[in-house]
Amino acid sequence: MSKRSRLNRRASPGALILLGLCLTRLPAAASPQAVLSFQKYADIAERIRISGLESETAFQMLRELTTKAGPRLTGSAAAARAVEMTRMMMKDMGFETWLEPIMVQHWVRGVEEARLVDTDPPGTSALKITALGRSVPTPGPGLTAPVIEVRSFEELQKLGLRVKDKIVFFNKRMNPAPMDTFSAYGEAAQFRSLGASEAARAGAAAVLVRSATLRTDDFPHTGMVQYDPQIPKIPAAAVATADADRLSDRLRNGAAVNVFLRLGCRELPPVPSANVVGQIRGTERPEEIILVGGHLDSWDLGTGAHDDGAGCVQAMEAVRLIKDLGLRPKRTIRIVLFMNEEFGSSGGRDYADAARRKTERHLAAMESDRGGFLPLGFGIGGSRETFDKLKAWEPLLQPSGILWVRPGGGGGDIGPLARTGTVLMGFVPDSQKYFDVHHSALDVLDSVHPRELELGAVIMAIMAYGLAQEGI
Amino acid sequence: MSKRSRLNRRASPGALILLGLCLTRLPAAASPQAVLSFQKYADIAERIRISGLESETAFQMLRELTTKAGPRLTGSAAAARAVEMTRMMMKDMGFETWLEPIMVQHWVRGVEEARLVDTDPPGTSALKITALGRSVPTPGPGLTAPVIEVRSFEELQKLGLRVKDKIVFFNKRMNPAPMDTFSAYGEAAQFRSLGASEAARAGAAAVLVRSATLRTDDFPHTGMVQYDPQIPKIPAAAVATADADRLSDRLRNGAAVNVFLRLGCRELPPVPSANVVGQIRGTERPEEIILVGGHLDSWDLGTGAHDDGAGCVQAMEAVRLIKDLGLRPKRTIRIVLFMNEEFGSSGGRDYADAARRKTERHLAAMESDRGGFLPLGFGIGGSRETFDKLKAWEPLLQPSGILWVRPGGGGGDIGPLARTGTVLMGFVPDSQKYFDVHHSALDVLDSVHPRELELGAVIMAIMAYGLAQEGI
Repeated sequence: MSKRSRLNRRASPGALILLGLCLTRLPAAASPQAVLSFQKYADIAERIRISGLESETAFQMLRELTTKAGPRLTGSAAAARAVEMTRMMMKDMGFETWLEPIMVQHWVRGVEEARLVDTDPPGTSALKITALGRSVPTPGPGLTAPVIEVRSFEELQKLGLRVKDKIVFFNKRMNPAPMDTFSAYGEAAQFRSLGASEAARAGAAAVLVRSATLRTDDFPHTGMVQYDPQIPKIPAAAVATADADRLSDRLRNGAAVNVFLRLGCRELPPVPSANVVGQIRGTERPEEIILVGGHLDSWDLGTGAHDDGAGCVQAMEAVRLIKDLGLRPKRTIRIVLFMNEEFGSSGGRDYADAARRKTERHLAAMESDRGGFLPLGFGIGGSRETFDKLKAWEPLLQPSGILWVRPGGGGGDIGPLARTGTVLMGFVPDSQKYFDVHHSALDVLDSVHPRELELGAVIMAIMAYGLAQEGI
Repeated sequence: MSKRSRLNRRASPGALILLGLCLTRLPAAASPQAVLSFQKYADIAERIRISGLESETAFQMLRELTTKAGPRLTGSAAAARAVEMTRMMMKDMGFETWLEPIMVQHWVRGVEEARLVDTDPPGTSALKITALGRSVPTPGPGLTAPVIEVRSFEELQKLGLRVKDKIVFFNKRMNPAPMDTFSAYGEAAQFRSLGASEAARAGAAAVLVRSATLRTDDFPHTGMVQYDPQIPKIPAAAVATADADRLSDRLRNGAAVNVFLRLGCRELPPVPSANVVGQIRGTERPEEIILVGGHLDSWDLGTGAHDDGAGCVQAMEAVRLIKDLGLRPKRTIRIVLFMNEEFGSSGGRDYADAARRKTERHLAAMESDRGGFLPLGFGIGGSRETFDKLKAWEPLLQPSGILWVRPGGGGGDIGPLARTGTVLMGFVPDSQKYFDVHHSALDVLDSVHPRELELGAVIMAIMAYGLAQEGI
């Protein structure tokens, strides 16, 4: 066996990675320069990961955000506090920062109460519920009405006017079968967003919606109602899954069950708020922007630790890692903490509109808004050519746990940037546990793991730096 | 474009999977029969996953095991209870069951206490410690000695006889940098297993060992001491990481710190125990065995939910899934719940010895003993040929979340079977959080997620069934 073939047989994993990279990325055989340059990125990617895992700074930031600002419902005093706080955090890290003012809804939660009426045995009548976002209140002291259960819009339609003056109870169980829990969520959440108007169309008095979670527990999960402007608005609340099962049991065999519902929530006039921006300016092409972000607003039942405190601190931590390692990106890396995602993503739309007005050039945008869980994959949007080019960077991400790179990418806040040619991308974390906590009182710091959270920041940092150096 | 090439272009993911399978598995182009047969397995794999995720039965089993048997320290009454209980569980599921008697160590934990002596301010002197398994007790009322800190065996060696009559404090921090936390664990755990004899060699009075976890908290993590039979045995305890940091702070700049240590643990005479076996007999080749397993014994600080209650219930659940779906495997699928892994894996050795004596033929063995976390990969041992053949089954595992199949496989309990040609394999779960709870009071049911746990059983079931039908 020649010395050369022996060397080939004993190629290190690093060499194999280089080979894979060269095959897919470089037009011809890899030049020594290309290999050298790739090795430089591999070294930087490793330094980023080690630095992140050693410091777990993203978690420290999240502790600060969730304890000092707390739940950050759009339009609330806490959301305003979070705007100031995150801006200061970014200033302290040495980033250029500013606010981009927007107007936001100001819905406030009030008293909320539901119970089974005329129930037996006594003491078991309270139902764990919470108002859905933007829900109108019940009339004054509350309403009492018979409950009618449905599991689909088809069932509702068949009932026709029989739901008049009743409380329609959407009791569609989230499907445990798909590995990607987001697909099951999409199916279940339509009743939360559209159920109120669909039921009101036939004269229903209110809706109760089974919480969108795979767990059976006592925590209602909220989320926004999308009222049809042509239809009268009726009160809408989520019911915890354990109580949804109990209510369903009571209704079995056509039994008559009355529920008392009282919601004191209401919509106040819009208030000024802001998207929070921070950046490190590129040394060679500062006008070309790589955006990393999350949304700063959250629901109010927990502290929005996963949704989307995680995404916000990951974006900030990604840029901190780059900066504190002394890396000086050629293009600008910008953090945007979007406001008002939960009430319709107006922060994302306003940001994209402003960017267009200012003729800013966003090459790529990454958003983390699927929870601070273990990153498993990376999605890349844009053209096939773009995908092929960036797919070649996979070996930079693999040592930090990314197991696949596939076409696709986006996010509620960065979506509007796609219209101006920005390539949307982002890491995809494990989704098994997200809906356990999503939009509920369980979405708190304690449900986030420091390493998993940090790894998201590490992935963002590696990709953002690569994009800042190489462009697209 | 011809109709045929249009069909090719629009090949479904399923068809691509088939193609991949055929290329690697079948000698020539795929025959329609082979395609049909693979589709049958793909359908079965999907039914297994859906059935598992809908029922989450593994978690119900784990609740029963951890609440009713509790911590299952080898030789304890609780371990004996677990033997009876799991045998009954398997009987109730309709499996053939028996016990394979073995003798096991019987070490008992007694009083344990450590504190800084002559400390100031008062009230901050207690150190959170726990005896390491098989540790000898301290002399009668405890011992007090100066503490000397080391971070490596080299440092210890350099100190020479200066450690005489002192408490050697091994304070090696677990390295957060590797993605695979098991590699960092291996490095840190050597001080726990070998530190006592290394220190005793130079006359030390006792050892304190920093707990092997990446968290900084108040929970000591135990594990077994391997005393060198040539060296006097000295007491050995693990100290919680927060207190290890505190102790290290006190020792800074050569300050003299005395610690009082009292351990009442002791070794009692060996007691009879058993490996618990259950199986469904193969319909065509019952003499060929596919083994799935975990170890039934655990440490005593938590309830051994991840380590290794998870593996035990996953093995039982894998076979339950197969049976309850009405599948009738051609070869025997056998569950073995091994006893006494934590005190030296004698259950696994005794099982392999007995199998050899009975000339039983174990084709393959899978063990789950890396926690009940999200399965990410699958390792296959044995020859390159075996690997290539089984690698072709990857498409059966992917829909249930397996992102890679690589060479490698094994486990403390099934390892001894390799000598008789058994192919060792198993799924590899995410390792980010395992050492947070491992061997500590945090290893309880609450730290296990029902879906993640179930997915391990699903992966085991798919592979066990495939192997039972196809052989190796």
